[in-house]
Amino acid sequence: MPDLNRKSPESLQDRLDQVQELLSRQRLVEDLVHKQEGPQQELVEHLVHQQNLVKLQRKLDELHPADVAYILESLPLSERLAVWQLVKVERDGEILLEVSDAVRETLIADMDSDEILAAANTLDADELADLAPDLPRDVVRELMDTLDAQQRDRLKSALSYDDDQVGALMDFDMITIRDDVSLEVVSRYLRRFDALPDHTDKLFVVDTDGLLKGVLPIKKLLVGSPDDVVVDVMVEDPVVFDPQDDAGEAAQAFERYDLVSAPVVDARGRLCGRLTIDEMVDYIREESEAEVLSAAGLREEEDIFASVWKSVRNRWAWLALNLCTALIASRVIGLFEHSIEQLVALAALMPIVAGIGGNSGNQTITMIVRGVATGQVQVAHGKRLLRKEASVALINGFFWGAVLAGIAMVLYGSLPLAVVLMSAMTLNMLLAACMGVFIPLIRLRLGGDPALGSSVLITAITDSGGFFIFLGLATIFLL
Amino acid sequence: MPDLNRKSPESLQDRLDQVQELLSRQRLVEDLVHKQEGPQQELVEHLVHQQNLVKLQRKLDELHPADVAYILESLPLSERLAVWQLVKVERDGEILLEVSDAVRETLIADMDSDEILAAANTLDADELADLAPDLPRDVVRELMDTLDAQQRDRLKSALSYDDDQVGALMDFDMITIRDDVSLEVVSRYLRRFDALPDHTDKLFVVDTDGLLKGVLPIKKLLVGSPDDVVVDVMVEDPVVFDPQDDAGEAAQAFERYDLVSAPVVDARGRLCGRLTIDEMVDYIREESEAEVLSAAGLREEEDIFASVWKSVRNRWAWLALNLCTALIASRVIGLFEHSIEQLVALAALMPIVAGIGGNSGNQTITMIVRGVATGQVQVAHGKRLLRKEASVALINGFFWGAVLAGIAMVLYGSLPLAVVLMSAMTLNMLLAACMGVFIPLIRLRLGGDPALGSSVLITAITDSGGFFIFLGLATIFLL
Repeated sequence: MPDLNRKSPESLQDRLDQVQELLSRQRLVEDLVHKQEGPQQELVEHLVHQQNLVKLQRKLDELHPADVAYILESLPLSERLAVWQLVKVERDGEILLEVSDAVRETLIADMDSDEILAAANTLDADELADLAPDLPRDVVRELMDTLDAQQRDRLKSALSYDDDQVGALMDFDMITIRDDVSLEVVSRYLRRFDALPDHTDKLFVVDTDGLLKGVLPIKKLLVGSPDDVVVDVMVEDPVVFDPQDDAGEAAQAFERYDLVSAPVVDARGRLCGRLTIDEMVDYIREESEAEVLSAAGLREEEDIFASVWKSVRNRWAWLALNLCTALIASRVIGLFEHSIEQLVALAALMPIVAGIGGNSGNQTITMIVRGVATGQVQVAHGKRLLRKEASVALINGFFWGAVLAGIAMVLYGSLPLAVVLMSAMTLNMLLAACMGVFIPLIRLRLGGDPALGSSVLITAITDSGGFFIFLGLATIFLL
Repeated sequence: MPDLNRKSPESLQDRLDQVQELLSRQRLVEDLVHKQEGPQQELVEHLVHQQNLVKLQRKLDELHPADVAYILESLPLSERLAVWQLVKVERDGEILLEVSDAVRETLIADMDSDEILAAANTLDADELADLAPDLPRDVVRELMDTLDAQQRDRLKSALSYDDDQVGALMDFDMITIRDDVSLEVVSRYLRRFDALPDHTDKLFVVDTDGLLKGVLPIKKLLVGSPDDVVVDVMVEDPVVFDPQDDAGEAAQAFERYDLVSAPVVDARGRLCGRLTIDEMVDYIREESEAEVLSAAGLREEEDIFASVWKSVRNRWAWLALNLCTALIASRVIGLFEHSIEQLVALAALMPIVAGIGGNSGNQTITMIVRGVATGQVQVAHGKRLLRKEASVALINGFFWGAVLAGIAMVLYGSLPLAVVLMSAMTLNMLLAACMGVFIPLIRLRLGGDPALGSSVLITAITDSGGFFIFLGLATIFLL
């Protein structure tokens, strides 16, 4: 039975527990040191302390950088920095690449320029580009000076792209070959490497000007006859990307065509980099996290153990926006204070109309935004979608409106009130359905991001609209 | 300049447009045929019609199955089925694998048993397992009979696992080798294949009993000397998975360790399958879509062009739940009808207290649920997180409460009312913060899924709680 080192999440949890146990033992020791004053006592504690640290350090050295990153993310700030101090300098770089942006900030704040430079020196140009935005300006300048010309050019080029462009995510670890050599020659060429870059599932075939002629999948190299010539077995029309391409669309292409790596080619057809599936997976995960967090008005920069002030800053804008929409809704109610004074049941029933409209509108807008994001919904579909969503809203409005009207009858014994409630619910759900279709499609036509704040917008409309419709109908028909 | 077939999303959109143009041209022809009655005219139209269909069919044949799937998903039902009829039978299987569950259902409903069987015959056991739950029962039974013993066993085993277990996602395309042969022998063995399975980045080293001894990365095979023996260069402690493992955790491991493929090993250490990154990427994407959709009370089974009835059925449960919580909130207001009658400003201000509490509570619970999902938050962190979230809530509550109190002063000219409003906002945000921490942690301890309906729950609490706190305080201090 081989020693199968199961790096599954359970055992990762075990490791986190071990690190935390060692840390808490150390905290205990520190507490003791503070309480006991005798020099003898101190010495003993010092030794125990040292021993624990050594144990912890040894543990950390064994771990994959991604696991160390996970542990750092799972620790409150003080303990996080204590562990960070124990990580070997030469591993700092790869671990900084793995941690989340929020945690990376706390770690870099704890390092001096020399430490940062030492960590940076272990990284490739594309990795440096990921890190650079989080580094102090003068450190980046110093770093530039230590790089050779090619590395510096690559770093500059990577930094010139937006975070969500292919150019910012590509690496430069591509192996290139000529198209007139035999597979035998290619195999011999590869054997001269000490190791191949990760995710090398294809070699890039270029001419003397660096123009991409095709790719040679490793699979073909392995099954092909050694005498075959590259040009005869290579794939001439691989999926390629432009550094300006949107990273999200590249990720979709990776998913669609099950790619592991793909060449990045500039406008002139020159090979300038390589995209790999691991970057795409990270991108997909980050996008989906950002989507979930932003739906609640959070930004990914907030880590779970962030300081109170940081959290307040992170969340205030959304709360302010929410307060504005709530104020508008409140003013709508204010218009009808006279009606509420006469029939106080209106005050108790109005949140139901607003709430169910918001819920139903959110269902519609989520569907449409998602369809727009995947490209399946176009502006031309508007009429058809509107018809469908309006029908769904009408059915739901009549049905749930009738249920609620029944309850209102029992509670307040007024048929006219029940009818007004049912009508208001149906109308507000209809309003929600129309807005749920219109808002994303109008934004799509105007070229904006249909997802951004869509939920706040629809809720604001159905709140104010619901109050207005219900109280307005009540004022006309009941008073 | 080579013919670089850029399969980027833009050109995918172009293709969709082309298909849609061909379809609409055909619709035009059909309309004409209906209007013109002369036999001569009909014959001409018939020919044009045929020509269009042939063009469309040729277009479809050129496309990658994933692209055909995308086009099918982007078309309303009638056009979707028209295109589906044009797809060659031998491609049906791979395309069915690519489309979403909702669309797959509509396509299968359009096929007879023979067509389904023909499509199924082009698939591997693991692919059949993906499809089987959507097929009619008797077709699955018939299908089982056509398989050989090994395929049948594999299909049965794949079907025995839950959708979110590794066993349901693994395939059986693993290439196994012995550990006592030289790399030269391995290379010669590989050359006997016509093609290697996709995502073959490592070979699996097994003994005669099928026990996994290690893996040989293709990278090592390529750079190693032909005389090296497998046992000396193989990796002895690869990341392995158990068929019972949670697919989400496996996906995290793929992400963490940048894997392309990994062996799946049963409890006795026997190699029983292989996980690949493409399945993991699909899983990650599906999970994140399900998360976004379920937050709005939608299920992934609903496709954007689903029928009205299907949409109503899909959405009613969530609306019903929402109606219940809204009713409870309404009854809380009902308790204070007497107070509202006396001071009608309460009716206008109460939705603000409830709304901002819900917003702030959603921010807290989203943070915590996410932390729990990634394993970074444990029950033991409860006290620390509670302290932090409560502080954030207090600061936000005082600040925004003061802003709103100022506005209320201006509007209603009553200092006591303003103070009650500010106090109620702060208290409700505090309630939201506590519940935002408690609910996920209690569910974590009880072993449930902390994400499920967390938003509904917190909103229900902050709505009813907000009304109760505000109207209660007002009744005590203002009346």
